[in-house]
Amino acid sequence: MIRRYRIGEPINTDSVVEQIKITTGEIPGWRKNQETRSLTFQLNDSDVVYGLGESIRGMNKRGWIYESNNSDDPIHTEDKHSLYASQNFLLVTSPERSVAVYIDTPGRVCFDIGYTAPSEMSITFDDFDADIYVIDGESRLDTVRQFRKLIGRSYIPPKWAFGYGQSRWSYMSVEEVRNVVNTYRSEEIPIDSVYLDIDYMDHYKDFTIDEDRFPDFADFTKEMKDDGVHLVPIIDAGVKIEDGYDVCEEGVEKDYFCKKENGKNLVAAVWPGKVYFPDFLNADVRKWFGNKYDFLLSKGIDGFWNDMNEPAIFYTEDHLSEVFEKIDTYKGRNLDIRSFFEFKDLVGAIDNNPEDYRRFYHDCNGQKVRHDKVHNIFGYNMTRAAGDAFRRLCPNKRILMFSRASYVGMHRYGGVWTGDNKSWWSHMLVSLKQQPALNMCGFMYSGSDIGGFTGDCTEDLMMRWLELAMFIPLYRNHSAEGTRRQELYCFGHQDWFRNIVQLRYALIPYIYGEFMKALLSDDMYMMPLSFVYADDKRAIEIEDQVLVGESVMVAPVYLQNSTGRSVYLPEDMKLVRFRSFDDYDEEVLVAGDHYIECALNETIVFVRKGHVMPLCAPAKCVNELDYSTIKYICFDAEPSEYELYNDDGLESITI
Amino acid sequence: MIRRYRIGEPINTDSVVEQIKITTGEIPGWRKNQETRSLTFQLNDSDVVYGLGESIRGMNKRGWIYESNNSDDPIHTEDKHSLYASQNFLLVTSPERSVAVYIDTPGRVCFDIGYTAPSEMSITFDDFDADIYVIDGESRLDTVRQFRKLIGRSYIPPKWAFGYGQSRWSYMSVEEVRNVVNTYRSEEIPIDSVYLDIDYMDHYKDFTIDEDRFPDFADFTKEMKDDGVHLVPIIDAGVKIEDGYDVCEEGVEKDYFCKKENGKNLVAAVWPGKVYFPDFLNADVRKWFGNKYDFLLSKGIDGFWNDMNEPAIFYTEDHLSEVFEKIDTYKGRNLDIRSFFEFKDLVGAIDNNPEDYRRFYHDCNGQKVRHDKVHNIFGYNMTRAAGDAFRRLCPNKRILMFSRASYVGMHRYGGVWTGDNKSWWSHMLVSLKQQPALNMCGFMYSGSDIGGFTGDCTEDLMMRWLELAMFIPLYRNHSAEGTRRQELYCFGHQDWFRNIVQLRYALIPYIYGEFMKALLSDDMYMMPLSFVYADDKRAIEIEDQVLVGESVMVAPVYLQNSTGRSVYLPEDMKLVRFRSFDDYDEEVLVAGDHYIECALNETIVFVRKGHVMPLCAPAKCVNELDYSTIKYICFDAEPSEYELYNDDGLESITI
Repeated sequence: MIRRYRIGEPINTDSVVEQIKITTGEIPGWRKNQETRSLTFQLNDSDVVYGLGESIRGMNKRGWIYESNNSDDPIHTEDKHSLYASQNFLLVTSPERSVAVYIDTPGRVCFDIGYTAPSEMSITFDDFDADIYVIDGESRLDTVRQFRKLIGRSYIPPKWAFGYGQSRWSYMSVEEVRNVVNTYRSEEIPIDSVYLDIDYMDHYKDFTIDEDRFPDFADFTKEMKDDGVHLVPIIDAGVKIEDGYDVCEEGVEKDYFCKKENGKNLVAAVWPGKVYFPDFLNADVRKWFGNKYDFLLSKGIDGFWNDMNEPAIFYTEDHLSEVFEKIDTYKGRNLDIRSFFEFKDLVGAIDNNPEDYRRFYHDCNGQKVRHDKVHNIFGYNMTRAAGDAFRRLCPNKRILMFSRASYVGMHRYGGVWTGDNKSWWSHMLVSLKQQPALNMCGFMYSGSDIGGFTGDCTEDLMMRWLELAMFIPLYRNHSAEGTRRQELYCFGHQDWFRNIVQLRYALIPYIYGEFMKALLSDDMYMMPLSFVYADDKRAIEIEDQVLVGESVMVAPVYLQNSTGRSVYLPEDMKLVRFRSFDDYDEEVLVAGDHYIECALNETIVFVRKGHVMPLCAPAKCVNELDYSTIKYICFDAEPSEYELYNDDGLESITI
Repeated sequence: MIRRYRIGEPINTDSVVEQIKITTGEIPGWRKNQETRSLTFQLNDSDVVYGLGESIRGMNKRGWIYESNNSDDPIHTEDKHSLYASQNFLLVTSPERSVAVYIDTPGRVCFDIGYTAPSEMSITFDDFDADIYVIDGESRLDTVRQFRKLIGRSYIPPKWAFGYGQSRWSYMSVEEVRNVVNTYRSEEIPIDSVYLDIDYMDHYKDFTIDEDRFPDFADFTKEMKDDGVHLVPIIDAGVKIEDGYDVCEEGVEKDYFCKKENGKNLVAAVWPGKVYFPDFLNADVRKWFGNKYDFLLSKGIDGFWNDMNEPAIFYTEDHLSEVFEKIDTYKGRNLDIRSFFEFKDLVGAIDNNPEDYRRFYHDCNGQKVRHDKVHNIFGYNMTRAAGDAFRRLCPNKRILMFSRASYVGMHRYGGVWTGDNKSWWSHMLVSLKQQPALNMCGFMYSGSDIGGFTGDCTEDLMMRWLELAMFIPLYRNHSAEGTRRQELYCFGHQDWFRNIVQLRYALIPYIYGEFMKALLSDDMYMMPLSFVYADDKRAIEIEDQVLVGESVMVAPVYLQNSTGRSVYLPEDMKLVRFRSFDDYDEEVLVAGDHYIECALNETIVFVRKGHVMPLCAPAKCVNELDYSTIKYICFDAEPSEYELYNDDGLESITI
């Protein structure tokens, strides 16, 4: 049961697809305070609060403050409030209730979930204009399903996007990409995609290719695809300001870029140097920008990632000159410590400065709206531009698309990756905890950079991370310029890495099938244990085990130098300890606490009682998987009891 | 068995107290490479590597690179290499061996412990001049004891320093301190000390007091002490440059400050603005600076903390003017992204810039030595100056002293706190893991800021942290300017906080007694489980349980929203679940794995089989504890089997 309430006059986000009549009057259970622009809800001791999609800390969000304020901040420590996404869905659960709230507003929202007062949840708005959807369900899953139905069916990626992807900022040339692919092939480590970060472009210009380093791009795309590898180029939000660059000149001519108060185009700087931002909130601009993807589609590209679309701003022209003027006032002075730190902070806060988000405007259906009022739907609308274009340009084909910034609604057009994480053991666990929350908010195709983006990865971290991410849809190893190389063949144990990635491929019948079943029925693919073991106090509290589809529980090892871990089984389960797809032990364990040994090269999977997990022979890429090789690992069940979903993985699916 | 080897011509650090003849020839087990200035050691799969004192990550240091390079870096993420200390002791252990190495050199050293190659440990030197002590023992403990004997008996704090301490940057006046103390007293939460951070001074000048905000300081110190509270002021390394300020003028006159290449005093800036650094490596300077503590001793002060003594440098005068000149070259230019980030980094890297450590010199027994060559012993010698002075000025009295920067050797003059941590759940666990490593290196009196220094603490974090730190010697709640107040009465459950801190006091007979027994016999107070359960594979791997003294194992809860945890018992133990000092359950558990419930207000303690834990009635401060109230929690043992160490806790102990 969903009720919709309205506060003020919210800007339409197009995040929901079902029109629900607005209920007038108080929002039951919520205390509204007009003065503080806040809503407050009472929490019971036994309540667990889920949601908020891509965010830090636990699956249970109690005990911290979160902000929906899409942020390009690469240091995801536990004290941060925002990452790149705004997914304003919260689910308050206990054995007694499953109530959810969805806050539909494109501006900044602050969620104090038992931080200030342990038994209160307070939501505070920059602008007190929002549609509030209150959802009451019979169970956690029922409530989520109602929400997912409200916001519409999630984006479906091609099946090859479940294979292993190799990324690096950046592979600099055709030769380098070829070398990566050849090494994976010769090491017999399966691979389905290589990502092209910003350097494939000509001076970081969207919809261009550096012809020197990537000549004959269509041929190269084909060469790779013939070897089972899809190239996935990045697209950034900012359009380089350059005479003669068609995207820039067209955008200027058509008046498609974001403007300052004075009507001039905002000049910001990102990777290409100075850029304009397309006004993605305008439908005409979306159509124009979306059509640009055809430059790459027509060269055989069938996958993209949209980046820097919070939007990230290294500086704006106006702010930078203000800073330089201000610096002059410090020079030559006998700086006391307060002035010194003011000076340092002045420079330190140039990039992604909140003031810059108040310097420019959008044209939303003829209405001039300051950016900060709609900040959180900017990246969503960039990806929507692409998604709509794909439906026009190649209506029968699935195109891989995922984005860094997001908002609910974008889940219909693409997936997400969780941005610039670190090669931290702690970030490995965070990446697992984010998955159920993303699923709740409609983001089914998602994942984090395996091995960590910035920082230096060790062999054991990479191995454990690949094991932990075994069932996570987006299975991509990505790392930043200047960090230790982390392609899997750069470490010592190629044989172990081969076994792990082959196991991933062997499990794709299960992974893809369960993903699609969940997606098509607005269900969860990865979920907290409480979604099934609803009354089990122990299960409800667990933060490092997750259910995957109908048959599997995962409980990965995520600590360095550990060769095992404690696992809680809410019911009898069958432990499968894989050393490779065809070398594994099975052991039935009774419900309760167990210490499970798990060597560095082992992946442990738990099969639920009465359930079945299919497994096929691996292949070098997803489309070569041979489903006739499928066998079944069963626990008190027969293979025939399992419904194996499959399709060609390429064609679009219409409702 | 200890052998000493020498490489090059090391500068004497005075870190060891036993003269051991130098053995010539190769260092057995180590591969020396003159070209890369490195030593390499082969690790077996089963080796666990302990040591490095105050550092990040696990008790087992395998799988990362650590650097001895004392650093004022307040962001202790798991990818950092250095904290504030250099404690170059490593212990390689397995059921088969316990071999240690101590690298005695005052410059930068890099420890690659299985990062580059999982089975190799490499030590690389900036200057290949060091004394290398190789220690072979019959057990982990035996090896540690030999090392501890080599470096001399650890600093002994007064007993009141085991009580609860309240700190804040900063309590700004007599009234504010009085209010803190009165509130603790009225809430009946025990307290023994209040820390005075930098604002008690007159413009951050060492050995001054702001007379407006802290008038009649000696009277106030007495007033507090009459109420059982010791004031503990901070002393910073830098001496403010100011005409008429006696410390500055004397230092200039006597030529006691660090000099640049050109012979002029280095001008750096820290909290007071521009400062000179006393040349603590010079014995005359140490004596002079040490005597200055008498300014506060004579006012009744009996405890200090030495800070900013890496030394932290916000900027040097010379470097800052270089930066401003360079900034001019960026101004007005059309900055491309590379230049923009160069400009940002230029300003971002002003403070604690490594180049600044090459701008000044010390007078080491008449030899002019550039600071970076002896960087890691600067803070040590500041604290040595104080410790030597205390022995001269009040030879029969214990003075509380701990320092931020340290090096082995300093352990004879003071303890350490682990610097500017964060209000992170992950930092709580780090603080526990640091203790055994600090003990190995001679640092017995130590602890971390409970609740976290920077960042905002929640009530549950504070409660769990107080429980986790229950047996840690330094039990201080400290937090930074601008963060949420975290005095214990600022949260909701004063009753729970009272119970927890009272339990700490009830356990002081055990804590203090075991601490002193360990200290006086060069033994470990807190240790990894492997020190006792030497052949137990599971115990060897455990990173979140620690042994304390002869009777106790702790296994605290350190995750938010958790009401229990898995615990491994290497032998039968008695679980004691405390809600308060006189409200607890006892339960005998058999060896093996257990899930232990532990509500937010509960502290769990495990008493080892055949052992005894004493417990007395709490009091408002340590010196009011009544040992006649002691009772004993025993597991298969009699009270009479326990040797309870006690003394007056105030008088110095000579060997």
